[in-house]
Amino acid sequence: MSLLERIDGPRDLKALPAAQLPALADEIRAFLVDQVSRTGGHLGPNLGVVELTIALHRVFDSPTDTVVFDTGHQSYVHKLLTGRRDFSALRKQGGMSGYPSRAESPHDVVENSHASTSLSWAHGIAAGRVVRGERNRHTVAVIGDGALTGGMAWEAINNIAAEDDLPLVLVVNDNERSYAPTRGGLADHLATLRTTRGYERFLDWGKRNVSRTPVVGGAMYETLHGVKKGIKDIVAPQGMFEDLGLKYIGPVDGHDEPALEAALRKARAFGGPVLVHVLTQKGRGYDPAITDEADQFHAVGVINPETGLPLEIAGRSWTDEFAETMVALGEERRDVVAITAAMMMPVGLQPFCDRFPERTFDVGIAEQHAMTMAAGLAFSGLHPVVAVYATFLNRAFDQLLMDCALHRAGVTVVLDRSGVTGPDGASHHGMWDMTISGVVPGLHLAAPRDGQQVARAVRAAVAIDDAPSVVRFPKGTVAEPIEAVRTVGGVDVLAEPDADAVDVLLVGVGSMAATALTAAEKLTAEGHRVRVVDPVWALPVPDEVVTLARAAGRVAVVEDNVVVGGIGSQVTQALRDAGLDQPVDVFGLPKRFLEHASRGQVLDAAQLTPDAVATRLRDRLA
Amino acid sequence: MSLLERIDGPRDLKALPAAQLPALADEIRAFLVDQVSRTGGHLGPNLGVVELTIALHRVFDSPTDTVVFDTGHQSYVHKLLTGRRDFSALRKQGGMSGYPSRAESPHDVVENSHASTSLSWAHGIAAGRVVRGERNRHTVAVIGDGALTGGMAWEAINNIAAEDDLPLVLVVNDNERSYAPTRGGLADHLATLRTTRGYERFLDWGKRNVSRTPVVGGAMYETLHGVKKGIKDIVAPQGMFEDLGLKYIGPVDGHDEPALEAALRKARAFGGPVLVHVLTQKGRGYDPAITDEADQFHAVGVINPETGLPLEIAGRSWTDEFAETMVALGEERRDVVAITAAMMMPVGLQPFCDRFPERTFDVGIAEQHAMTMAAGLAFSGLHPVVAVYATFLNRAFDQLLMDCALHRAGVTVVLDRSGVTGPDGASHHGMWDMTISGVVPGLHLAAPRDGQQVARAVRAAVAIDDAPSVVRFPKGTVAEPIEAVRTVGGVDVLAEPDADAVDVLLVGVGSMAATALTAAEKLTAEGHRVRVVDPVWALPVPDEVVTLARAAGRVAVVEDNVVVGGIGSQVTQALRDAGLDQPVDVFGLPKRFLEHASRGQVLDAAQLTPDAVATRLRDRLA
Repeated sequence: MSLLERIDGPRDLKALPAAQLPALADEIRAFLVDQVSRTGGHLGPNLGVVELTIALHRVFDSPTDTVVFDTGHQSYVHKLLTGRRDFSALRKQGGMSGYPSRAESPHDVVENSHASTSLSWAHGIAAGRVVRGERNRHTVAVIGDGALTGGMAWEAINNIAAEDDLPLVLVVNDNERSYAPTRGGLADHLATLRTTRGYERFLDWGKRNVSRTPVVGGAMYETLHGVKKGIKDIVAPQGMFEDLGLKYIGPVDGHDEPALEAALRKARAFGGPVLVHVLTQKGRGYDPAITDEADQFHAVGVINPETGLPLEIAGRSWTDEFAETMVALGEERRDVVAITAAMMMPVGLQPFCDRFPERTFDVGIAEQHAMTMAAGLAFSGLHPVVAVYATFLNRAFDQLLMDCALHRAGVTVVLDRSGVTGPDGASHHGMWDMTISGVVPGLHLAAPRDGQQVARAVRAAVAIDDAPSVVRFPKGTVAEPIEAVRTVGGVDVLAEPDADAVDVLLVGVGSMAATALTAAEKLTAEGHRVRVVDPVWALPVPDEVVTLARAAGRVAVVEDNVVVGGIGSQVTQALRDAGLDQPVDVFGLPKRFLEHASRGQVLDAAQLTPDAVATRLRDRLA
Repeated sequence: MSLLERIDGPRDLKALPAAQLPALADEIRAFLVDQVSRTGGHLGPNLGVVELTIALHRVFDSPTDTVVFDTGHQSYVHKLLTGRRDFSALRKQGGMSGYPSRAESPHDVVENSHASTSLSWAHGIAAGRVVRGERNRHTVAVIGDGALTGGMAWEAINNIAAEDDLPLVLVVNDNERSYAPTRGGLADHLATLRTTRGYERFLDWGKRNVSRTPVVGGAMYETLHGVKKGIKDIVAPQGMFEDLGLKYIGPVDGHDEPALEAALRKARAFGGPVLVHVLTQKGRGYDPAITDEADQFHAVGVINPETGLPLEIAGRSWTDEFAETMVALGEERRDVVAITAAMMMPVGLQPFCDRFPERTFDVGIAEQHAMTMAAGLAFSGLHPVVAVYATFLNRAFDQLLMDCALHRAGVTVVLDRSGVTGPDGASHHGMWDMTISGVVPGLHLAAPRDGQQVARAVRAAVAIDDAPSVVRFPKGTVAEPIEAVRTVGGVDVLAEPDADAVDVLLVGVGSMAATALTAAEKLTAEGHRVRVVDPVWALPVPDEVVTLARAAGRVAVVEDNVVVGGIGSQVTQALRDAGLDQPVDVFGLPKRFLEHASRGQVLDAAQLTPDAVATRLRDRLA
């Protein structure tokens, strides 16, 4: 029986002799490489936090104490140490979530995989426990240096630092990276703090010596504290966290388990908020990850565990189409600049950055800043392209509305991973973006249906200089090209009967155009007259969609956005504004959080397959 | 002719002899007190920045250089110095905006009155000019210490600090307040920096002496820089801004115009990003403002200029109803806690805070943190009430969705100033909240139609412990109570004919219930059969609304939210989900930015008056 198999929870871990912990860490790493290479998942981040997670569960008492992981993809070790060893269906339908999950375990609290939230969660939990008189229950937040670049983490630090006696420990897991290496003033400051490794040891020496001198308690502490300040000012610049009033411990070697336990016990005993600065190495213990400069195996598909090379070769992706278009646009137009929020490679901006580094900005995990900076760049006479995952547009709604649109800024927002993403679960689906960008006055939105359309849409978007524009496309392999039968008023007609009048005008948005087309084929075979259109620019709703609706008995819209407030709602409103009363059926994603599963499974459950759309539409036509 | 009358732009200001500047400052203050007391407006903030604004326009060269004001309500002095002296219709329809306005002047750039954006704007403008080869054009951001507590300001600082050579000056206007006194670790740190007033003078002494010694240029600078570091570590804790890598100048007396000019000229010449820390006094020079501890005349209505006392006495407000209910709930339930984002008084939480200080949290201008902290408080077993202006919910959409709703947190969000607000213009209308909260799974939303309903809604909301709830009401005097004819399935029927079948089911949301009722009276008098309902809980759409719709020829929804994706859209979707094809007419706010004017004028222009609704509905019924 391995050590790992004997651990069903923190109690078993605490019972393990310290001497066996290095062997346990080795077992965990071997387990992770073996398992995650079969299923895909977040490998690098978890290899980096093995000792840290062991130490956390030995020092604290979950679930009486609460451990909150920021951007929970580094919770695999936590799952193993809280009795979850079945990784066979990781991120698959019905299998283990790739993030903490309250349904899985009472040790999991925050399921959110949007970054920079953990300090706010922890502040709320700790403050709530004080109000409830449960001061003996500790709260720990584990946050990466990357996530610290997000504004809400700063909002939390500003608040937490002003609290004198919250039993709250903030662990900064500093691996010098978010997805890619972390940038910015904070990263530089953390680097400065990292160079002071000798400091805690020196302090311990001071403490031992000082404590031998016969001085009374309180004064002694004050003296020690004073000595500490003094030493620190000599050894290293005083830390900004202490400037803010936050107690700082570190830096601690994140792969030295005893040192981590010592630091965490000290923090736990302090009685007020403490920041523990832990240095870890992403991908630790797995050579293919360490030597991968780009992202150190942040997230992988199915790989060969020996070489780290992918076993699945995906085809050309939507992202590839965008990446190529951006490089071409960069050559053609000197005023096109690009912004990413710590996702240079995943959103396809790396080739543009390689070619035009002076025109590329990586702002960290800071979508708000990205969007407003874009408004500023537009004011200066440039055309910025902000490329983010669709789900992260949620973070920049106010800035898109108030900074870009109110000021009629020609800013193009490119939303990758829109619609259903799949294994990353509820928080990674891009299903809200068309609703929130839909209320933005003047905004133009295109949802390209295939690769050719991506290039066309992005080119048209960067030509709009007096309003924000959005281009959104899904994750994965690009769809087969669909040729238009004819184009009228900017709207592509994809299929239609000979007659002008039809039973239904079926509007397919983006990658759902293919779904609409196949559904229409089924209905046409049954004798229904169906016209299928791709609006190309879905917002504002093209006049031609309204014109075509006049000749239709009813209208249906298929979209991979939440059914509320998306393109279907806007088409409905456009018809009413034109005095038309035809009913509009909206086939979109349900207003629910969608569990992790494959993209196909999620679409199937949401009744967004061609068969399901045909069936539902058939009922309405009956 | 007064000095002020001779200034039509920065050139005239620059031509003025320095000796006349104190007299100009006096004139400006007298002008502001006189004018703003007639019209209402932001008084305290503008009295505080008179010398700062004079110095800015003497040192920089707007509009070649760009000055960005954060939360532009402190731009009145800027308006005066750029040739705008007609304050007679300030914040009135057709009159001067209370914020910068590009339509008014080329000196105005950022119209946004949501806080904490200026550093991101300035970063974008400055970076854009470098890309365009316009490095000689300077960019200045003026941000208050209050706005610095907002996360996106931190995101910007983190990015700006990493730039070595952007021609960018960040002026921190430190008056120790946002709306109310600023709190948090940053406020404490700024206070520490404020105690080092002697520092710049000491440095100047060092500079004078060092510059006399015969050392070569670059090395001299290095030496000086080294000396500066050394002195600073002795005189005061090293500043966190410098820890981040940002050059810091200050603190400077914000009412000493020559000192301000000197500091700004130094910053301008530096060639890289510099933070200038300026100490100002809100309400400076106006006794009634200085002695007003609460908010120092942040914003005023029409007042007597001698006494500062309001001339208009408003009746009981929606906010008062909420404030009273909260205190009662606080007495009844020990688990109810309150959160405000630097707006304790305006959102009505002051009485609760006075009574239950240990259960009240003011997090600064940090809506993201507020919402996620609330999720944490809920996890700890409490029921938090987050009270914000409706327009600021935009900043916390992702947190409402991902932290509160995904985790089924019993968090109540109370949205004041929803719908049309009026004189604050485009960015202060609360017209997006029902769309963005409408996509949040499980969320319950109530829009009380009168004061009694506020209490009822808030009480019902805090009883919901497994999902977020929203209660939204407008600015101003509470509406007359409207009694229900009958209540069925939670829906209040406000008026109906004897018959069961009606021509139209008219749904009035919140304060629009009164509008719907009056419109219905007109139509009923003309022989139309109209049933008027208030859904009470507008989201999720009550089943009873769908049931009542079955007996109606068509449905109409009146709401003071943008027409796209609001309650009308949700009612439409609910009908379609039930297989009903009745047309739904949505009477809401247009998808446009609405200019400043009185509430009545804006509603009139939006055709949301009883007459306009009746007319539009009559057309549909014809």
